[in-house]
Amino acid sequence: MDAENEQQAAPAESGGRERQAGLSRRAVIGWAGAGVALGAAAVGTVAAATMSSEDDGAAPQPSPEIPFYGENQSGISTPVQDRLHFAAFDVITDDRDALVRMLKEWTKAAASITGGREVGGGAVGVVPESPPDDTGEALGLPASRLTLTIGFGRTLFDKDGVDRFGLKAKLPEALVDLPKFKGDRLEAGRSGGDLCIQACADDPQVAVHAIRNLARIGMGVVNVRWSQLGFGKTSSTTPDSQTPRNLMGFKDGTHNIAGTDADALAKHVWVAPGDGADWMTGGSYLVARRIRMTIETWDRASLKDQEDTFGRTKIEGAPYGGQKERDAPDLAAMPADSHVRLAHPDSNGGLMILRRGYSFTDGSDGLGRLDAGLFFLAYQRDTRKAFVPLQTKLAANDKLNEYITHVGSAHFACPPGVRKPGEWWGQSLFG
Amino acid sequence: MDAENEQQAAPAESGGRERQAGLSRRAVIGWAGAGVALGAAAVGTVAAATMSSEDDGAAPQPSPEIPFYGENQSGISTPVQDRLHFAAFDVITDDRDALVRMLKEWTKAAASITGGREVGGGAVGVVPESPPDDTGEALGLPASRLTLTIGFGRTLFDKDGVDRFGLKAKLPEALVDLPKFKGDRLEAGRSGGDLCIQACADDPQVAVHAIRNLARIGMGVVNVRWSQLGFGKTSSTTPDSQTPRNLMGFKDGTHNIAGTDADALAKHVWVAPGDGADWMTGGSYLVARRIRMTIETWDRASLKDQEDTFGRTKIEGAPYGGQKERDAPDLAAMPADSHVRLAHPDSNGGLMILRRGYSFTDGSDGLGRLDAGLFFLAYQRDTRKAFVPLQTKLAANDKLNEYITHVGSAHFACPPGVRKPGEWWGQSLFG
Repeated sequence: MDAENEQQAAPAESGGRERQAGLSRRAVIGWAGAGVALGAAAVGTVAAATMSSEDDGAAPQPSPEIPFYGENQSGISTPVQDRLHFAAFDVITDDRDALVRMLKEWTKAAASITGGREVGGGAVGVVPESPPDDTGEALGLPASRLTLTIGFGRTLFDKDGVDRFGLKAKLPEALVDLPKFKGDRLEAGRSGGDLCIQACADDPQVAVHAIRNLARIGMGVVNVRWSQLGFGKTSSTTPDSQTPRNLMGFKDGTHNIAGTDADALAKHVWVAPGDGADWMTGGSYLVARRIRMTIETWDRASLKDQEDTFGRTKIEGAPYGGQKERDAPDLAAMPADSHVRLAHPDSNGGLMILRRGYSFTDGSDGLGRLDAGLFFLAYQRDTRKAFVPLQTKLAANDKLNEYITHVGSAHFACPPGVRKPGEWWGQSLFG
Repeated sequence: MDAENEQQAAPAESGGRERQAGLSRRAVIGWAGAGVALGAAAVGTVAAATMSSEDDGAAPQPSPEIPFYGENQSGISTPVQDRLHFAAFDVITDDRDALVRMLKEWTKAAASITGGREVGGGAVGVVPESPPDDTGEALGLPASRLTLTIGFGRTLFDKDGVDRFGLKAKLPEALVDLPKFKGDRLEAGRSGGDLCIQACADDPQVAVHAIRNLARIGMGVVNVRWSQLGFGKTSSTTPDSQTPRNLMGFKDGTHNIAGTDADALAKHVWVAPGDGADWMTGGSYLVARRIRMTIETWDRASLKDQEDTFGRTKIEGAPYGGQKERDAPDLAAMPADSHVRLAHPDSNGGLMILRRGYSFTDGSDGLGRLDAGLFFLAYQRDTRKAFVPLQTKLAANDKLNEYITHVGSAHFACPPGVRKPGEWWGQSLFG
């Protein structure tokens, strides 16, 4: 599995070539700012000069671009970016060819914007009589480590028994209808979806711009079913970085799978040959849950209650039995219903899932309270052996359930990566 | 008015003293991380050592703290921060004393958290049997240029004719009920409020933490009526910085009032003696409007239509008649219904308002579209002479109205600043 992680370490060669094929957003600004009038035909020439975002005199950013091409999709083992915009889509056509055309267009656009370029490759604004190819709100912004990750929902393969796109035979067994867990209060308008796009970036404007432009390209083929903004990451896949805090004020993502741990990724995250559904090899299954926190109740709990609920200290984040956040926990020292004890791999036969959730706050709930919580995102090799048994146990026993409610749920099969220009999202499924 | 701007240039002396009176959040982390057990009584001693956020070896941040104390509230002429959490509150008690007590507690908490310290001054977690004073999710984060700005709504003075808190005689004439403008489609659940808090910071977690902790302190006295997250600023009050783009892809805040322009602030923003309602001297009137953009329609408009709508070029942001963003516009070169032409001071007898709006994206609208737009925030010396005439004209004539709808509206009187520790928000009104 080593080769699959090279994309994180250094830009793939194909990514480098693609980058030269278009203007960076900042280069476009410099060019337009100079007042030079160029026709569309001249764009290729300017692009050949390979202006990079470092050429405009601004301070260089640390690795603002995450390579789009690779064996696995980026946005899974990639170091977790600061902000999220996640969207689930309904396919509103029965025309398989239209859907495939859209997926090809999406792929091309995704390669552009993750590289810090515009949709359409940098030719914004040269045809006054047409709508611009790109909506423009990210002009002048760097790539901001944007990743775009696509997933396919079960309803794409089989919707109420109807095989809409001839895909039913390719439905992976692992892409189960999630069972109803104890305490679930799911809202249809925040659940499900035929497709999803996870956009992660360090700048929310870049993540929102990406989803908005893909939705625009998909007009007539897909509708946005629901979307979720995440303002703060709650997990890290970089072992040496500071673990962020959730809205309960706790560090809850300490023992996550590291994006650099090829063995753990191979064992727990990437679908392997022989796992079933060959087209998913190199892919991963994504569970998304919108978890509302009743923070007003939580805030009235004593510090001891709060710490007992997690099995960690609040300020340092040390597990019971340890002094520091990353010390080994003493599970027996925790209450039997504490979150860390119940969820720890040692309590679950070594089971691990890769988490990359985000905090959300979406206005108020009409009852005088903030509508806030955790948008939980987890990747795994087989949901039946990971999220389903773990959540079944947590839903029944976790002390945390006094303070949280799952109100949205979705499950997607995220295919392997697009390896080079010309390939497209879903090619292994539709191709 | 020069003295009123010193708070932006250098930390006020009183702010410096206050800072020494508590632990910084990062110092707390270091202290707790070392495993030292300290009782509450010892906290003062540790605080006297004046640990600053620079002491923990992390890279220093550029001016992470905006002084809380000053003649004017911060968050108005302050350079616009990247992120916003705005909340409007209903007062749910008739007890004036309880309301005043809360305002005093809010003030103390605001002074702490804008200084990068915890609510309660840094004693988080020393009493296991009690709920922590601070909810904790900003532990370890710098102050992030957080500002908290309070405002009072008309209903605090007069609600359906009832003088709930003995304030009716102090209702400023300028705090009018905003008229219904042409095209308004206001939702009650996104409009009005007895109080508001504007939290601006470069880190959204810090802004959300601030609102959440104030809401918590106010439990039993206030309810959150509505709240709005803004992910990207659309205006700048710093003339030499790059103007951000709104979700239409345009730069729309170019000719804003600069936070350093004392003459313009005195003329257009700060309430002066003799303006009426003495307690508002040094304050400002805030209009908040949630403006939904029908971005799907906008995205189908040609580049020329889009540029004609604003009266600016899209990529460079140059006004018609100019080459660069900050060139003087030739208003006559723009269509008569273009936004810049209609809103420009030269078309309005020199009228200016200080804008500090933010883009929002709040999920989808149930019709397959993103619920996205601009959360417009504008400060002015007298709303009757600024926002009201300007919006009356724009609502009737602006070409932009084809693509936007005002769905939320509120109007607040933001009192002068808290000048030193011991004073409190609203003291000039209630005191």
